[in-house]
Amino acid sequence: MDQRDPEPGAMRRALDLAAAIGDPGPATYPNPRVGCVLLGADGSVVGEGFHRGPGTPHAEVDALAHAGASARGATAVVTLEPCNHTGRTGPCAQALIDAGVARVVYAQADPNPVAAGGAATLKQAGIEVEQGLYAAEARDLNRVWTRAAELQRPFVTWKFATTLDGRSAAADGTSRWVSSRAARLDTHALRALSDTMLVGTNTVAVDDPALTVRDAEDRPLGVQPLRVVMGERDLPADRRIFADQAPSLHLRTRDPHEALAALWDRERRHVFLEGGPTLAAAFLAAGLVDEIVVYVAPFLLGAGRSAVADLEITTISDAFRPRVRSVDVLPATEEGEQPNVRFILEPQKEGH
Amino acid sequence: MDQRDPEPGAMRRALDLAAAIGDPGPATYPNPRVGCVLLGADGSVVGEGFHRGPGTPHAEVDALAHAGASARGATAVVTLEPCNHTGRTGPCAQALIDAGVARVVYAQADPNPVAAGGAATLKQAGIEVEQGLYAAEARDLNRVWTRAAELQRPFVTWKFATTLDGRSAAADGTSRWVSSRAARLDTHALRALSDTMLVGTNTVAVDDPALTVRDAEDRPLGVQPLRVVMGERDLPADRRIFADQAPSLHLRTRDPHEALAALWDRERRHVFLEGGPTLAAAFLAAGLVDEIVVYVAPFLLGAGRSAVADLEITTISDAFRPRVRSVDVLPATEEGEQPNVRFILEPQKEGH
Ligand SMILES: NC(=O)c1ccc[n+]([C@@H]2O[C@H](COP(=O)([O-])OP(=O)(O)OC[C@H]3O[C@@H](n4cnc5c(N)ncnc54)[C@H](OP(=O)(O)O)[C@@H]3O)[C@@H](O)[C@H]2O)c1
Ligand SMILES: NC(=O)c1ccc[n+]([C@@H]2O[C@H](COP(=O)([O-])OP(=O)(O)OC[C@H]3O[C@@H](n4cnc5c(N)ncnc54)[C@H](OP(=O)(O)O)[C@@H]3O)[C@@H](O)[C@H]2O)c1
Repeated sequence: MDQRDPEPGAMRRALDLAAAIGDPGPATYPNPRVGCVLLGADGSVVGEGFHRGPGTPHAEVDALAHAGASARGATAVVTLEPCNHTGRTGPCAQALIDAGVARVVYAQADPNPVAAGGAATLKQAGIEVEQGLYAAEARDLNRVWTRAAELQRPFVTWKFATTLDGRSAAADGTSRWVSSRAARLDTHALRALSDTMLVGTNTVAVDDPALTVRDAEDRPLGVQPLRVVMGERDLPADRRIFADQAPSLHLRTRDPHEALAALWDRERRHVFLEGGPTLAAAFLAAGLVDEIVVYVAPFLLGAGRSAVADLEITTISDAFRPRVRSVDVLPATEEGEQPNVRFILEPQKEGH
Repeated sequence: MDQRDPEPGAMRRALDLAAAIGDPGPATYPNPRVGCVLLGADGSVVGEGFHRGPGTPHAEVDALAHAGASARGATAVVTLEPCNHTGRTGPCAQALIDAGVARVVYAQADPNPVAAGGAATLKQAGIEVEQGLYAAEARDLNRVWTRAAELQRPFVTWKFATTLDGRSAAADGTSRWVSSRAARLDTHALRALSDTMLVGTNTVAVDDPALTVRDAEDRPLGVQPLRVVMGERDLPADRRIFADQAPSLHLRTRDPHEALAALWDRERRHVFLEGGPTLAAAFLAAGLVDEIVVYVAPFLLGAGRSAVADLEITTISDAFRPRVRSVDVLPATEEGEQPNVRFILEPQKEGH
């Protein structure tokens, strides 16, 4: 292998360009983060581009625009397989062909069955195509988006907070606060990575949460996730979820599959499921939870509302045993508070 | 201050001698770990000693025996105030006086009202006495013993294991295993630091635990804690707790104060309370829990036995909020297991 091969460096640069738009979230979905670097015949960079979100040019088109005539005979190094379909913008495969690109190196194959085929189109046009350089890194860059594309439904993160003895509220219903301030801020940071907040009708009826995403100074994010409440009953129009700071939607169904299909049709890619326990148990039973975030606050209530609803598990060998992706101590940031622990869990395929 | 003062170095050495007998536990209680270094007039070490456990000479007497005639005019540097009472051995204050020691420097004042007065006796005999050098370190060396002496009752560590949703067993009663192997080994290591295991009659009736302390190869410790079951009902004589591998005791009472008083009378200093939840709640309600060790296993049951019994807390502001002394991730050591988290908590004085 040529030690002076410029392609790996160009792919690293393309990954960095893609990541430069910041964390994924409501401003980037339904699209992935993509970066592209065009290399001239001598290995020098003749154009760079990245995707800035829905309605803006794809990374390849952005790079081609910067390269102009130098794109002819160039190698396009791109983090994702060029798309083959016409969405809000034209297909990138065709744009690369039209620009006279000689070779295309991409990292991650398009996981989306609708758009797949870009590589084949390029090859048919006589372009040399290579796949797999930094493929794992490219997948990580769009971890949630990729999984959603594979599943053809939104990725679901279920979050709950609990005391050490599994309670989410005291016997009288009071629950402010179970989590520490550090854990609550962390939750807002994770909510901001999703494009959809989801709760059951009872949470809206009882707690009336705003479900907006706010920063440490309690200022709302610029672009908010869609706020969704799910369930058949009517809800009073004065609930905070229906106020105009952010869009909201009442899905009048109890079927988790149906709800996710409806959200997918609205181009939702990442649902942040904040309960209550009844709705979460229904998603778990349907096998529609992809990730669980749990905040453990080290105190005891002895009684009160269970953080997790009945899962119809009767014996220990049938316990729901997810894989631990990470476990972190969140140090206390406020006087009088205690450290909380955050688990991020992934349901395992086999057994569960 | 004299830069060449040999006393701090001698105290460090005395602390190391005291710690050299290993962790405190059934072999050392009811006694503290104590070390002593005797310094001659020129600052050289003329004798060293440490206490090896009940029935053996105290550290000062051990050091005096090694120093012989050189003890005359020496400075005794000792980690704990010399005792003033005749127990299994004679009072150390008198031994130091008899040996002609000129000065005594000790770290920790005797927390035990019965034995206190050693310093006064020494002063009355014309010996120069100084207290406080490395006092905090000396207290840490005998953390549990000190607290027990202050309280004049055994120190109580309550241990429980829980799933992330606060369960200690599934609905059908099965509970093997909630904790990972790493957490179970850690529990045995902590049990070994106590001199008394305590459970309620129902745990013995239902679970029939052996309550012996075993190492990683499942070999029992040389010296075992006393195994105590507490409650009024009769228990079948064939229960494993009554087998002869280790001593055992049935305390026919439901009064935690009475039980601890009875254990104190039997020279018990550290009770490891392993449940069940009913007995633990009674100790908690009586304010008789000094430390809580919780193992959290990151899986869900959704139903089943609660790890913590009703504590008569009805609203969140009355939650039992201990201080977190430590929180540690215990990595999985077995295939297919997940990391567990261990919290060590201390009830706070105010508020509870
Ligand atoms: N600790 C936490 O992190 C946390 C987070 C959120 C909420 N909470 C607490 O949880 C409580 C509410 O929880 P909850 O469990 O009672 O209510 P919930 O899960 O918010 O809502 C349950 C309702 O959702 C509807 N629903 C939609 N799909 C369903 C399905 N597949 N299966 C069953 N029901 C479905 C049903 O109402 P319809 O009749 O309308 O269909 C059902 O009664 C609140 O009091 C809140 O304080 C805690
Ligand atoms: N997760 C864990 O770490 C763990 C640890 C241990 C046990 N367990 C489980 O817990 C279950 C047993 O727990 P449990 O709560 O039913 O029983 P328990 O606490 O072991 O025993 C309760 C009994 O202790 C006696 N008792 C003594 N002092 C008492 C007091 N002050 N207040 C109330 N009762 C007192 C009473 O019986 P008398 O009528 O005899 O007085 C009472 O019925 C077992 O099935 C076991 O599997 C779990």
